[in-house]
Amino acid sequence: MERGRRPLRAGLALAAVLLPAPVPAWGAEPLPSATLRAAEALRDRALAEGRAAEWARRLTDEVGPRPAGSSGDRAAVAWGVALFRELGFSGVRAEPVPVKVWTRGVETGEIVAPFPQRLVLTALGGSVPTPEGGLEAQVVRVGSLEELEMRAAEAPDAFRGRIVFIDRRTERTGSGMAGYGTTVAVRTTGAAKAAAHGAVGVLIRSIGTDSNRLPHTGVMEYAEGVPKVPAAALSGPDADLLARTLQTGRPVRVRLVLGCHDEPDGVSANVVGDVPGRERPEEIVLLGCHLDSWDLGTGAIDDAAGCGIVIEAARLVAASPRRPLRTVRVVLFADEEKGGAGGRAYPRAHAAELPRHVAAFEADSGTGRPLGLGWTAGPLAEPFLAQVAELLAPLGAGRLIPGGGGADVSPLRGAGVPLLGLDQETTTYFDVHHTANDTFDKIDPEALAKDAAALVAAVYAVADAPAPLPRIPPKAP
Amino acid sequence: MERGRRPLRAGLALAAVLLPAPVPAWGAEPLPSATLRAAEALRDRALAEGRAAEWARRLTDEVGPRPAGSSGDRAAVAWGVALFRELGFSGVRAEPVPVKVWTRGVETGEIVAPFPQRLVLTALGGSVPTPEGGLEAQVVRVGSLEELEMRAAEAPDAFRGRIVFIDRRTERTGSGMAGYGTTVAVRTTGAAKAAAHGAVGVLIRSIGTDSNRLPHTGVMEYAEGVPKVPAAALSGPDADLLARTLQTGRPVRVRLVLGCHDEPDGVSANVVGDVPGRERPEEIVLLGCHLDSWDLGTGAIDDAAGCGIVIEAARLVAASPRRPLRTVRVVLFADEEKGGAGGRAYPRAHAAELPRHVAAFEADSGTGRPLGLGWTAGPLAEPFLAQVAELLAPLGAGRLIPGGGGADVSPLRGAGVPLLGLDQETTTYFDVHHTANDTFDKIDPEALAKDAAALVAAVYAVADAPAPLPRIPPKAP
Repeated sequence: MERGRRPLRAGLALAAVLLPAPVPAWGAEPLPSATLRAAEALRDRALAEGRAAEWARRLTDEVGPRPAGSSGDRAAVAWGVALFRELGFSGVRAEPVPVKVWTRGVETGEIVAPFPQRLVLTALGGSVPTPEGGLEAQVVRVGSLEELEMRAAEAPDAFRGRIVFIDRRTERTGSGMAGYGTTVAVRTTGAAKAAAHGAVGVLIRSIGTDSNRLPHTGVMEYAEGVPKVPAAALSGPDADLLARTLQTGRPVRVRLVLGCHDEPDGVSANVVGDVPGRERPEEIVLLGCHLDSWDLGTGAIDDAAGCGIVIEAARLVAASPRRPLRTVRVVLFADEEKGGAGGRAYPRAHAAELPRHVAAFEADSGTGRPLGLGWTAGPLAEPFLAQVAELLAPLGAGRLIPGGGGADVSPLRGAGVPLLGLDQETTTYFDVHHTANDTFDKIDPEALAKDAAALVAAVYAVADAPAPLPRIPPKAP
Repeated sequence: MERGRRPLRAGLALAAVLLPAPVPAWGAEPLPSATLRAAEALRDRALAEGRAAEWARRLTDEVGPRPAGSSGDRAAVAWGVALFRELGFSGVRAEPVPVKVWTRGVETGEIVAPFPQRLVLTALGGSVPTPEGGLEAQVVRVGSLEELEMRAAEAPDAFRGRIVFIDRRTERTGSGMAGYGTTVAVRTTGAAKAAAHGAVGVLIRSIGTDSNRLPHTGVMEYAEGVPKVPAAALSGPDADLLARTLQTGRPVRVRLVLGCHDEPDGVSANVVGDVPGRERPEEIVLLGCHLDSWDLGTGAIDDAAGCGIVIEAARLVAASPRRPLRTVRVVLFADEEKGGAGGRAYPRAHAAELPRHVAAFEADSGTGRPLGLGWTAGPLAEPFLAQVAELLAPLGAGRLIPGGGGADVSPLRGAGVPLLGLDQETTTYFDVHHTANDTFDKIDPEALAKDAAALVAAVYAVADAPAPLPRIPPKAP
């Protein structure tokens, strides 16, 4: 998952312009008992068969790392198309998505003085390389973006010609995004903010909750009119070392060599496959995850896990003796990590269909057990979702959190499509997120089976309900 | 710590030849109350001042990695000499130790077929490099050394021309050496055993209890008359990946590039400093740790922690208002990890003094809290050590385990010197042992203060007892 980007609205605006009248809204009737029984049966079958981890394993083992536009990404698209066909999905296709391409290259760092030490670091996604021959400069530490601005206001030259070390620690805050949400702006905006005050490079403490010598990458963005300076994340232990070395009061010089760079623009694809509905196949319940990953690990928790969950849910729906009224569509989105191009391309490619998208689910929160659903829909959706929550309660997943969705489905919001995110336990998610440690051994197959069970029950209920979920109302102007 | 080597007896035999009559043995009298009071005072002061972690921090931050014979090793020796002088120790000196030198160089691995994947691995200490251009071969997996031999007996060509993957998992067995002790022979002898059956290279599952993408290095040994083949350890997640890929039943090819190689022999040093005794300065209680480390991390738990403990214990003894009867000597041993040359050099250099060595303590078990003492001495030592254990009991460290010592002090055994190892909690020790993760942030300063408290109390009691500990009796011929 990548929730550090600024929202990108272009796709939404386009979709909104093209909207014909949506299908009639739902009126709070109880779900038919046949719907509930079939949803329960799928939920229980998901627990019994538990193949979500198998799909995640195949993606990580047979493809591995798959950053947008890389050879691994192309292999992943081919893998997805082949698997969808193997599973008997309909209308299987790879819908082209233009993507920016960035590759990592060499990356080394060292404290040059006062005590020579190797630093384990990794370039942030989108960083420019260091100049030919590397970058060496004295380091200045700040504890936060706020401190950076405050000190720059006091002493405008404090950071000029320096490598700025933004040493903000990400706290483990239990399940949820609180810790990461507080610090991720260091990664996305730190380089631009430091460069605005004359910094020649930026090091950040990894946005992560572990203490392994494995740095966390993730996307960063430059700002217009500000020099682009190289930016990298230190592993936690290396950030500790640099901070302790600075505490000696002696000048600390660091040398960086980053070979990362933009490549010519490329093409990736959203992989799409349908399980047609039995009566209203033109109405669509979308299940999304993202197919791309960062390059350091094999993208197991981010997001082979989510893909395993949605693929398994769709497989179970396809295998159900009673297909739901509506079509269930799986979309393996392209380029979630680096640019979100897949999520933006989908509503462009499917503009005419959007009024018939009755809901979009997303799974992109790792391998933890299900806790419930996050939801964004019309306010009248709540009594309906309460019935869905009852289906999920035996899994310990009965909670409903207003405001859910996910990065890939959020561009559908402008078209009013109700968004539903699978809410999962994430206490240890940011230990391995965006690191080399994001590998299949971190997947918990039992928890993933429960996730698929929760998702398939909810998806079935939404896809088989007599009337669709109330749509998201247009925003006040 | 490195307990995988075969015992090296040359130094012992030499020492045994040179032994004059030892000092008179101890007769089980109770310790004088002045001794007990002073030992208790030092124990409590160690808890109050807690500087063991400070010495470990300085060694790891100011020196960093320090494999025997490297520039880091030379910096570490200079660091030790300077610190001993700063602390006011007497007779501070660096005693030369000839060492074999080995450097790591480039190391990469990849699964070439059926699914290309990068493998995170690290060369085992002492490995030969791969041939010019790398080594590529089909992989055969065995689950243990026993399986290797069994299958070679059944099919003598089973491993010919293959890379043998020894996939033995190290179990976490609570505190202690049980898990590591069971599997370490895979690392030390695996390459020689596989090469004896025609293997061209060896990969092992890291001898460690974590699931991080950080491989565990450690020493390995070749056998006479058997080809030397390159040997590396895969991180746990990479071993899992390789095992799963082999389970597909398709031929699996791996490519390795290892640049590691022997360098010309070098010189390191044991750093020695004394806190002279008040009445019998010629009688010596030795406190040892090892100064060298592996190169991947900064050797924090292995063994800056032990050095912090013994240095702090000696500092406290030196600062005591009542010096013990005997001299307390700190020795930072050279080359524990790669060859044990420092431990062997010491008795050679001090042969004439060995009969006056009344005990040798060692701390080389990481950063966990103290549990007690392991001991190897004459059987009559037990009632004495029971009194020492009472001093340690308030720290939760009152247990006595027969058979203690440590790699560096064990060459003193042949001279009959009683050996005492600080027994520590090690449940998570093998998570970071010999990996890049062995960094200062893993140090627990409070536990280390307790370790120093336990050690200084025990050392003081032994150094101030009216008669020395009963010596280790000569082995039956």
